[in-house]
Amino acid sequence: MTPFKLTDELLLEIEALIENQQNSKLESLLEEVHYADVAEIINELNEQDATYLIKLLDSDKTSDILTEINEDIRESILNNLSAKEIAGELEELDTDDAADIVGELPKEMINEVISEIEDREHAKDIVELLRYDENSAGGLMAKELVKVRESWNILTCVKEMRAQAENVTRVHSIYVVDDDDKLKGRLSLKDLLTTSTKSHIRDVYIPKVDSVSVNEDPEEVAKIMSKYDLEAIPVVDEMGRLVGRITIDDIVDVIKEEAEKDYQMAAGISQDVEADDSIWDLTKARLPWLFLGLVGGVGAAAIMGGFEDMISKHAILFFFTPLIAAMAGNVGVQSSAIIVQGLANDDLKGGVANRLIKEMLLAALNGLILAAVLLIFTWIYKGDFLTALAISISLVAVIIVAGLIGTFIPLFLDKRGIDPAIATGPFITTSNDIFGILIYFSIAKLLLGI
Amino acid sequence: MTPFKLTDELLLEIEALIENQQNSKLESLLEEVHYADVAEIINELNEQDATYLIKLLDSDKTSDILTEINEDIRESILNNLSAKEIAGELEELDTDDAADIVGELPKEMINEVISEIEDREHAKDIVELLRYDENSAGGLMAKELVKVRESWNILTCVKEMRAQAENVTRVHSIYVVDDDDKLKGRLSLKDLLTTSTKSHIRDVYIPKVDSVSVNEDPEEVAKIMSKYDLEAIPVVDEMGRLVGRITIDDIVDVIKEEAEKDYQMAAGISQDVEADDSIWDLTKARLPWLFLGLVGGVGAAAIMGGFEDMISKHAILFFFTPLIAAMAGNVGVQSSAIIVQGLANDDLKGGVANRLIKEMLLAALNGLILAAVLLIFTWIYKGDFLTALAISISLVAVIIVAGLIGTFIPLFLDKRGIDPAIATGPFITTSNDIFGILIYFSIAKLLLGI
Repeated sequence: MTPFKLTDELLLEIEALIENQQNSKLESLLEEVHYADVAEIINELNEQDATYLIKLLDSDKTSDILTEINEDIRESILNNLSAKEIAGELEELDTDDAADIVGELPKEMINEVISEIEDREHAKDIVELLRYDENSAGGLMAKELVKVRESWNILTCVKEMRAQAENVTRVHSIYVVDDDDKLKGRLSLKDLLTTSTKSHIRDVYIPKVDSVSVNEDPEEVAKIMSKYDLEAIPVVDEMGRLVGRITIDDIVDVIKEEAEKDYQMAAGISQDVEADDSIWDLTKARLPWLFLGLVGGVGAAAIMGGFEDMISKHAILFFFTPLIAAMAGNVGVQSSAIIVQGLANDDLKGGVANRLIKEMLLAALNGLILAAVLLIFTWIYKGDFLTALAISISLVAVIIVAGLIGTFIPLFLDKRGIDPAIATGPFITTSNDIFGILIYFSIAKLLLGI
Repeated sequence: MTPFKLTDELLLEIEALIENQQNSKLESLLEEVHYADVAEIINELNEQDATYLIKLLDSDKTSDILTEINEDIRESILNNLSAKEIAGELEELDTDDAADIVGELPKEMINEVISEIEDREHAKDIVELLRYDENSAGGLMAKELVKVRESWNILTCVKEMRAQAENVTRVHSIYVVDDDDKLKGRLSLKDLLTTSTKSHIRDVYIPKVDSVSVNEDPEEVAKIMSKYDLEAIPVVDEMGRLVGRITIDDIVDVIKEEAEKDYQMAAGISQDVEADDSIWDLTKARLPWLFLGLVGGVGAAAIMGGFEDMISKHAILFFFTPLIAAMAGNVGVQSSAIIVQGLANDDLKGGVANRLIKEMLLAALNGLILAAVLLIFTWIYKGDFLTALAISISLVAVIIVAGLIGTFIPLFLDKRGIDPAIATGPFITTSNDIFGILIYFSIAKLLLGI
């Protein structure tokens, strides 16, 4: 398979075809192109062209395209479609994707669109999904699943399944429920292929089935599914009734978003932004953290101002403040990143005290090695052993404290129920800058006796 | 489902049961526990206890446990097992997991273990998988799949499938091959359920099937599978022959590892380490980046030394160096992180020049806002407008240059085929520190006229 690559030539060709309304050429050009690739093309078109293409192509393809394109482009396309046209798209989609799109519509539009959906069961399912918090298993699940009653026999089961399977893109598991719709277990496709048609479901189903509650956090669902290697998991309500299922492709998105969020937080970007967002959106995401850095820098300047009396005899101390600040920041980011990842993967064992002792030893080891290098260099360079020693000793102290702060803060935030990832960015760098410079000058003053 | 939670009590109970060799109690205690959870337990046991448990439990469970436990514990357990025992475990595993374990065995052990595997087909498949580069689609794929020939009819197909399905945990797709084993297309389970048994495969299969080459990069496979929402993808060799398949659960691991690697690189951790690794391993991963920071700091000190003549009249300039360094570092990390993520998601459109212009505008906007705040503050605080102005103007210049460096370096590295993620860590912070301080003092000197 040669992966699709969107070229400028292709884009120009499509724009020209739209311009000249050469519909049949457009259709045949895009016929063999996967909907995810058409979505990539549409992301690059202007609003009019994008809408033109959506109206032109078949709704079983455009519905999938709509789920893949950027949110802002989707919004403007949907603005140009009638309620009936939108309903036609929703008709083709799985309930979870359809509910996501309905959730984005203007409030006054929703009722009209829902009423235009011909398949009333489908409409009912979509409305049900709108009830759930976006940030819960309920907000992630789809209603499409294959379920059978424990009282049926295999033959009824196969007949029913054929009917249900019509609406389900991928059959992962056949869920077994009792007469109250309570989830009892599952039936594997393999079992179904190899069991006599007269057997009763009750006698052959597997009574053990993993499930999650509708209220479960998506990240928790992701952890469960990836730990237990599940490709789909049924979702049950507060009464244990089967209300939906979550598939692994939705979970892949959750995992990716989570990783991106952590990465951006560590880089000091407070909202989910992309390179192509507006300068204004990017500023909103970046400026708050820069402002924090500014406050920290002013704090550091104030601390240094307090040690101004040392400047005439020991100017060199002031030359090393960026080094001290950088080391404090780097060590803090390193140690907090390791804790944040350990927390995310649930593999931090042992207590806080043990973590802090280990980090202290580690920071002391790293600090001593670095300080030794710095001592020799500064001594040779400046010829003043005592000052060089004072700088190096302070460096060790600063690194140890920075490591301890970097280890403690994410653990503390996590205990308080706050996402520890916010600790691995400008937050830890800034606080470590200030502490680092304070410790550095205090020790230097003590050792150099002024 | 209440997720399993490993408690200290449970661990103590299991250790006591192992101590007293109460095998039947152990077996009944662990019978209902999922293998991924038993793996968590074993990760906490010492070598003897872990080996004891593996030898005690059923090999269809222990084989799965072995794939889930930490690598170092697996190594010591395997050291305590005979070739025959290891072969017994491999027998139960899918070929991809089995090959991964064989790949970790000492060289002299491999032949013996392979010769002890009773199912010779399985052994052959494992040996074939050992040939592939770990970091390729071939190294990720399993040999377990269901394939049918286009010349068969549905009835033969169902019969063959039943036999093949015995060895395949999850049937995702039925692949259709010609007599030379070349991949021709696929057959959906749904089609199979709804087509007459006399039809020929040739007439009903879907000739369009996505596939990847054995040599494809795992990250590329992950992109394809998540873009096209695939749960399994067939792998073909250089002749187009079907040689294996990759399932989405392997891809989830690739995505997670990739995200962790980027995050660690951004935090200045150069090897894949975890919080529970030894102090020595953690030092190896952390010290090189700290050393880079040290060199940068010494560079910054040298630059400041060059401006020493300004210290008597404008000591305040020196107090603001940590602020300048922090702002340069933060802006650099922010802009590089956005580029790195854009590159990773393949959604950077437009040329390098456009990116740089946009970042310049963005940095100028952020810089002006921050500089205005700083100007007012420093002016009130120190009463010297000219110095305050000089610091603020320098800050704007520093932020713009830092943003440009942060944008350019990852784009440059990516063009050169180097992982751009290395640019979002101490590397960018350090270079921005140096450039920032140089620009700051140069502009200040110019404006203050000394």
